[in-house]
Amino acid sequence: MTENPQTTDEITDLADRIRAGERRGLARGITLVESTRADHRAQAHALVDLLARDGKQALRIGLSGTPGVGKSTFIEAFGLHLTAQGLRVAVLAVDPSSTRSGGSILGDKTRMERLSRDPGAFIRPSPSQTQLGGVARRSREAIVLCEAAGFDVVLIETVGVGQSETMVAEMADLFVLLLAPAGGDELQGVKRGIMEIADLILINKADGDLKAAATRTEADYAGALHLLRKRPQDPEGFPKARAVSALSGTGLSEAWDDMQTLTHWRKDHGHWDATRTAQSGHWFQEAVRQGMLDHLRSDAGLRDQMAASARAVEAGETSPDAAAAALLSKLF
Amino acid sequence: MTENPQTTDEITDLADRIRAGERRGLARGITLVESTRADHRAQAHALVDLLARDGKQALRIGLSGTPGVGKSTFIEAFGLHLTAQGLRVAVLAVDPSSTRSGGSILGDKTRMERLSRDPGAFIRPSPSQTQLGGVARRSREAIVLCEAAGFDVVLIETVGVGQSETMVAEMADLFVLLLAPAGGDELQGVKRGIMEIADLILINKADGDLKAAATRTEADYAGALHLLRKRPQDPEGFPKARAVSALSGTGLSEAWDDMQTLTHWRKDHGHWDATRTAQSGHWFQEAVRQGMLDHLRSDAGLRDQMAASARAVEAGETSPDAAAAALLSKLF
Repeated sequence: MTENPQTTDEITDLADRIRAGERRGLARGITLVESTRADHRAQAHALVDLLARDGKQALRIGLSGTPGVGKSTFIEAFGLHLTAQGLRVAVLAVDPSSTRSGGSILGDKTRMERLSRDPGAFIRPSPSQTQLGGVARRSREAIVLCEAAGFDVVLIETVGVGQSETMVAEMADLFVLLLAPAGGDELQGVKRGIMEIADLILINKADGDLKAAATRTEADYAGALHLLRKRPQDPEGFPKARAVSALSGTGLSEAWDDMQTLTHWRKDHGHWDATRTAQSGHWFQEAVRQGMLDHLRSDAGLRDQMAASARAVEAGETSPDAAAAALLSKLF
Repeated sequence: MTENPQTTDEITDLADRIRAGERRGLARGITLVESTRADHRAQAHALVDLLARDGKQALRIGLSGTPGVGKSTFIEAFGLHLTAQGLRVAVLAVDPSSTRSGGSILGDKTRMERLSRDPGAFIRPSPSQTQLGGVARRSREAIVLCEAAGFDVVLIETVGVGQSETMVAEMADLFVLLLAPAGGDELQGVKRGIMEIADLILINKADGDLKAAATRTEADYAGALHLLRKRPQDPEGFPKARAVSALSGTGLSEAWDDMQTLTHWRKDHGHWDATRTAQSGHWFQEAVRQGMLDHLRSDAGLRDQMAASARAVEAGETSPDAAAAALLSKLF
């Protein structure tokens, strides 16, 4: 793709600024990959291709947690814990439900005030896009930019709306689920599907009055995880549940050790590279499928027929396969 | 799709024979939907469309369990429990790993000898197809045929290879997971992803020496299910874990009551229809996507380019999105 005519001097310059770790360059690059304009898309592809070839890798950590678990507090405390060790940390927010424009920037930075002022950290809030496909593409490309900028850790935070966790897990090296302690018989309400993708379940607020509840919840989840089959990419003892406190800092160092253990084990056993390769393949297939569906939707006649066919199928007037066959015979 | 030229007298006749509950007609219909020949596909679409309009509904039960849990024994005992009540039961096996040709028919019927001789039951083994997409389509169409033939219950059994459980759950009204009792500290090894789709977890072999272990395992899973968020389509107390014995018959009646409770509650609250409608929509989208990918693969030049792009992406030479954009620009 080097022969892409859009790889102008401007893009080469921007790539160099990002490689040099220039924060404004990185911010501009992410703005470019967030754009849906066709010429911007072509430039973004050229930029991402250029930078991806540098081969720099950060540890990509997917992080999910429902409102009220203290996610911002955790990210701030955990981020500062890492920057204090000299590590550079980028935080990307993924919120497909976000329809805020502009305001989100202020919002995200306000809720992580100390981390946002830390020179070793870079926080980029979620853009106001509502299409999951667009959010996925933007996030993957932003990760590549952050890696090229030399960050050691890229935290990809999601609010857990709809399929966003699965999506984030598909672009992360490891996935962390943050929970609040559950009291007694109270239903915890972990979203289905998440136990399967979590490498580490952290029960936050293991401090003060909630300490005992957090320890109990840790044991509950350790028990539930024990019932699941061991995955080939996990060393003994993983996935793991651990009580932490973003407030007091308890368990943050141990959680980071867990992540390091997982990372080293997976690198040593070939799972790290294998997973990244499989993820790339997955996103390529997804991008092709999405592109084909977009094409289907871009033609008004086809779009109407697709909608009519979907209605007929849902009303039971025709079968999904017969309707699809009829539609495809018109397309090709 | 009534104007389909393939809706010949022959297909109309076959539809009538299936509606009349003629077993040979049903078997022939399923053989037709299993064929991948283009003319057979068109006839199958016509047949399925004709029969789907009858609007007859069976209770579609997806059932999964790893080898050794006593799945055949369970299906036989459970099936006979239902036929004894005058219910008609069809059993469809879904095994994407099956490469046996012919032999599977003998195998499946032999392992459920009593049920296969029961006039109220119809057992259809898995065809020797290895493509998951093909297996999915065939199973959906076979279900419609069984419903048109007046079966009250359609059991869709899967061996749980790869994504087959998710696929079966997407075509079933409820999903049952069959497990073996776990002794003490032994890892149960439930496949990830399955806890979220199971409506009922049955721990088999609650008899003799394993009775206590089955009860303990039931409690373990009840605890784990309790940690998951309640789904809107579930009444209080579901999903549920229950110890049963296919050998002694213990719990079979209660398991059937559970399924009835779920069914009635979902019908009363609109979830039954909503789920079927959503499933149809899902399969239509899937069929369109699959058809487009098939088209991509049917052209040798495009197929080669797709493979080359996938390799370049996986080698990190280009990004998934840039490669997909380049490919799509040639396609359209």
